[in-house]
Amino acid sequence: MTIRLGENGYGKQRVRILQVIRHADRHDLKELTVGIRLEGDFETAHTKGDNTKILPTDTMKNTVYALAKQQRIESPEEFCLRLADHFLSHHAHVSRARMEASETLWTRLPYGKTLHPHTFTRSSEERRTTTVTATRKEKSVQAGIKGLVVLKTTDSAFEGFLRDAFTTLREDRNRILATAIRTAWLYRSNDTAFESTWHDVRQTLLEAFAGHDSKSLQQTLYAMGEAVLAKFKSIREIRLSLPNKHYNLVDLSPFHLDNPKEIFLPTDEPHGLIEGTVRND
Amino acid sequence: MTIRLGENGYGKQRVRILQVIRHADRHDLKELTVGIRLEGDFETAHTKGDNTKILPTDTMKNTVYALAKQQRIESPEEFCLRLADHFLSHHAHVSRARMEASETLWTRLPYGKTLHPHTFTRSSEERRTTTVTATRKEKSVQAGIKGLVVLKTTDSAFEGFLRDAFTTLREDRNRILATAIRTAWLYRSNDTAFESTWHDVRQTLLEAFAGHDSKSLQQTLYAMGEAVLAKFKSIREIRLSLPNKHYNLVDLSPFHLDNPKEIFLPTDEPHGLIEGTVRND
Amino acid sequence: MTIRLGENGYGKQRVRILQVIRHADRHDLKELTVGIRLEGDFETAHTKGDNTKILPTDTMKNTVYALAKQQRIESPEEFCLRLADHFLSHHAHVSRARMEASETLWTRLPYGKTLHPHTFTRSSEERRTTTVTATRKEKSVQAGIKGLVVLKTTDSAFEGFLRDAFTTLREDRNRILATAIRTAWLYRSNDTAFESTWHDVRQTLLEAFAGHDSKSLQQTLYAMGEAVLAKFKSIREIRLSLPNKHYNLVDLSPFHLDNPKEIFLPTDEPHGLIEGTVRND
Amino acid sequence: MTIRLGENGYGKQRVRILQVIRHADRHDLKELTVGIRLEGDFETAHTKGDNTKILPTDTMKNTVYALAKQQRIESPEEFCLRLADHFLSHHAHVSRARMEASETLWTRLPYGKTLHPHTFTRSSEERRTTTVTATRKEKSVQAGIKGLVVLKTTDSAFEGFLRDAFTTLREDRNRILATAIRTAWLYRSNDTAFESTWHDVRQTLLEAFAGHDSKSLQQTLYAMGEAVLAKFKSIREIRLSLPNKHYNLVDLSPFHLDNPKEIFLPTDEPHGLIEGTVRND
Repeated sequence: MTIRLGENGYGKQRVRILQVIRHADRHDLKELTVGIRLEGDFETAHTKGDNTKILPTDTMKNTVYALAKQQRIESPEEFCLRLADHFLSHHAHVSRARMEASETLWTRLPYGKTLHPHTFTRSSEERRTTTVTATRKEKSVQAGIKGLVVLKTTDSAFEGFLRDAFTTLREDRNRILATAIRTAWLYRSNDTAFESTWHDVRQTLLEAFAGHDSKSLQQTLYAMGEAVLAKFKSIREIRLSLPNKHYNLVDLSPFHLDNPKEIFLPTDEPHGLIEGTVRND
Repeated sequence: MTIRLGENGYGKQRVRILQVIRHADRHDLKELTVGIRLEGDFETAHTKGDNTKILPTDTMKNTVYALAKQQRIESPEEFCLRLADHFLSHHAHVSRARMEASETLWTRLPYGKTLHPHTFTRSSEERRTTTVTATRKEKSVQAGIKGLVVLKTTDSAFEGFLRDAFTTLREDRNRILATAIRTAWLYRSNDTAFESTWHDVRQTLLEAFAGHDSKSLQQTLYAMGEAVLAKFKSIREIRLSLPNKHYNLVDLSPFHLDNPKEIFLPTDEPHGLIEGTVRND
Repeated sequence: MTIRLGENGYGKQRVRILQVIRHADRHDLKELTVGIRLEGDFETAHTKGDNTKILPTDTMKNTVYALAKQQRIESPEEFCLRLADHFLSHHAHVSRARMEASETLWTRLPYGKTLHPHTFTRSSEERRTTTVTATRKEKSVQAGIKGLVVLKTTDSAFEGFLRDAFTTLREDRNRILATAIRTAWLYRSNDTAFESTWHDVRQTLLEAFAGHDSKSLQQTLYAMGEAVLAKFKSIREIRLSLPNKHYNLVDLSPFHLDNPKEIFLPTDEPHGLIEGTVRND
Repeated sequence: MTIRLGENGYGKQRVRILQVIRHADRHDLKELTVGIRLEGDFETAHTKGDNTKILPTDTMKNTVYALAKQQRIESPEEFCLRLADHFLSHHAHVSRARMEASETLWTRLPYGKTLHPHTFTRSSEERRTTTVTATRKEKSVQAGIKGLVVLKTTDSAFEGFLRDAFTTLREDRNRILATAIRTAWLYRSNDTAFESTWHDVRQTLLEAFAGHDSKSLQQTLYAMGEAVLAKFKSIREIRLSLPNKHYNLVDLSPFHLDNPKEIFLPTDEPHGLIEGTVRND
């Protein structure tokens, strides 16, 4: 038997940056956390301690700041494309670059009857995400969302399911449906209007979730994916990962109280997890 | 020397509840995490293992659900007052009840040109908080906020400070000011309009933060407290705890790039922490 | 009515430091996270934006590093005492200094039949804590522990408790008892052997928890505090805060299986919280 | 274009279980958090709301408890194999089952000169992990570790690396090397002695980390993988994911103090991330 190095790569994670754009009448800002991973000809670094092809991860961090200064960050997708191009074009032994960015979303503060020119509140634990994977032959851009928590109090059922010896769950015609949307979609082209499309896809997902008369979270997942693909021809496929955040009806009968879907116990664990990809071929 | 029991108390923490109110045309909801702590005559439980005066913490949890069903939760403050009353009136050996609630805030989903009747998104990591402390003689109600993250890109300076042998900080005429507001204010009366006042105090704090031309976070803290007390006579005092979430200007000079307050490194640690109480006597 | 500043203070939090001591035959290390808070004459900073008495929190951070270099950190308690002295002796307008430190515990790696001279593993999420509060007249030193998770599978009961209309809990003669010990004890003198005492108190607490035939967590708390005070005359009082981390017996009867205290569901919420101080007067 | 369902699967996550084994002279315990994911013929659930092939995730949770009772959990690997067998053998439309388990490690409490028969402390944030992937044709068992934090104070350098326009890092002949080991290795057979092998692999990794004179974390990663594969013929490949947790030397020159590798600033972000697979063909 022979011991040898297989797949490998390295990079810098959690590189945080805030860019402020100072217009005359207002300031804008963009906050990202960037992750960088390079693959390439790094074998002798592993096997011989030869660092001559190892660009320090500290340099990758510096690159994030320098490139943002050289040209303003327009969108996480655009910035990740630019970073990937940089590493591939400057370092011939790098064969593949994967850039990830997670955007912390800020909302301009309502102030009297207007919006404040330079004060913002952090919108939510929700993050806008992107992953760009690039080789010298092709680049793929995925956009996405994580941590978008949504809840509906009706129009959700779960009945007629499979039963086995360990099934005790009761059928439910009218349950709470809550999830933290995690999704990523793949664009057909790298020339997409990334900013506006992201916001439109997000709203489409939310409206599909809200408007669906759900027989299961699986069915709702598919309806959400279908709504996006039907509307956005620029998207080739979308993956959704939806935890089923259970809200359990509390049994109040020991206290001689009924509970007509009014008092619930929110739970974090255990939780269902429904995952699926919807494609437009 | 004599060993003896000093201050003590016990209760249930992280009791989660969601209440759904099903109107004909829309649903409302209220999600709280409740903490209960009782003080009283519990000495023999500690010293002799005598449980006859120990109400199980499991019962406290049940009480949250039963009381919410008996009468709808109007506000965290109202519900905590009601819970405190319950424990004090049913259990003569309880001398003091402290109830805490943290509200998870939900926002009705924009849906087409209207708002959706039964779908909500979770607004933020921000929580609305309350603490009610009650004895048989008096009750105090505090309302508050935690995790309200806010940032301004200008109108903040820090100059003319004290220097000693270990001071290396440079003066800054125009820095980013960012914090996660944590605050609690004490009402003069338990008959306050808790719901509307909370929203108004929150907006007053945000506008004071935004509108202040800050010479230090201490000065901004005082301005925020003063703005609240000047406007709300129903509030006796307000305490603010403001971490100074530093955004450090990145030095781009090694790359022959200037950085006129454009590229910043957001940091979590270390952070300043400015705390103060403002009173209206 | 007059609006005025009440209690206030400020400082730096989450100042992290690792000190390496390079002996000829082995290395030692000490990792602390330090929090600093000063009180004093800071009123005009709040009310007038006058920073002439405000030592930057950045300077406090620098002070941690400089003092550690000037004289090696012996224990968190010793180092916090030294920091407090520094701020009080160099800044006449500071009236009170509170220093907190949380030690990340490292264990020397077992290596073959010996211990490795310079490699360590992080022991646990447990932290050794200290709080030093000092004025020019007096200093108090508290040592403590947080996050020490402990579980016993028997010798714990909860019976004969108080019942009211909302009590559904069953008596239990033989339950699992689990908690995450959080404790702080106050020394009579600042000349204590802090290092050895901390380790001895920790072991005393653990053995008291293990050896106690518990009728309630309250009784166990008191037994733990009593064991420490009976053994360590240098300790004036000890405070314990013990979450009751419930392990619920799973009902397997729907599957025609009994469950004689064998299969449990570990839970994080809700949880009981038992708190008490034991004193030696 | 046609919209259609692609890869999909669902299951239950964060199913927590504690099993107590009550011997006459001592108790043992095993605490796992289990994740279950099934793939199979679920298309009509997504596209038509037909739940007849959907086993509730609640049933999966029940299955964990029932199977643990029917036969004691020997190891996370054995238990996941058993769970996968259960779902594949009882449900013909399930084509693939992936079981994950994360073990919370408990250590028997030292008590006087012996070990306590029924009291345990939680060892660490480290988790023992396993992933079993099974179809009707084949099963693969991976074992692993996450969160094993390790640090060495010398025998680590990083020199002679690649430089580009954004490189500012200085060469370092003697740095601190710290990481949180995350690893998973693939067994050749499902008949391995899972318990003893896991402990031996863990110690081999730690000793390889400690004993290596490191020119880079890449080289250390390879040395760790090589040490495991050289010793354990039962392992086909091992993947390591090693964050480079930077400890930065603090510049004390402004305070006229030197810092000969003694005072460091521990940081969490940004961090390097070195990943690689080592194979034995």
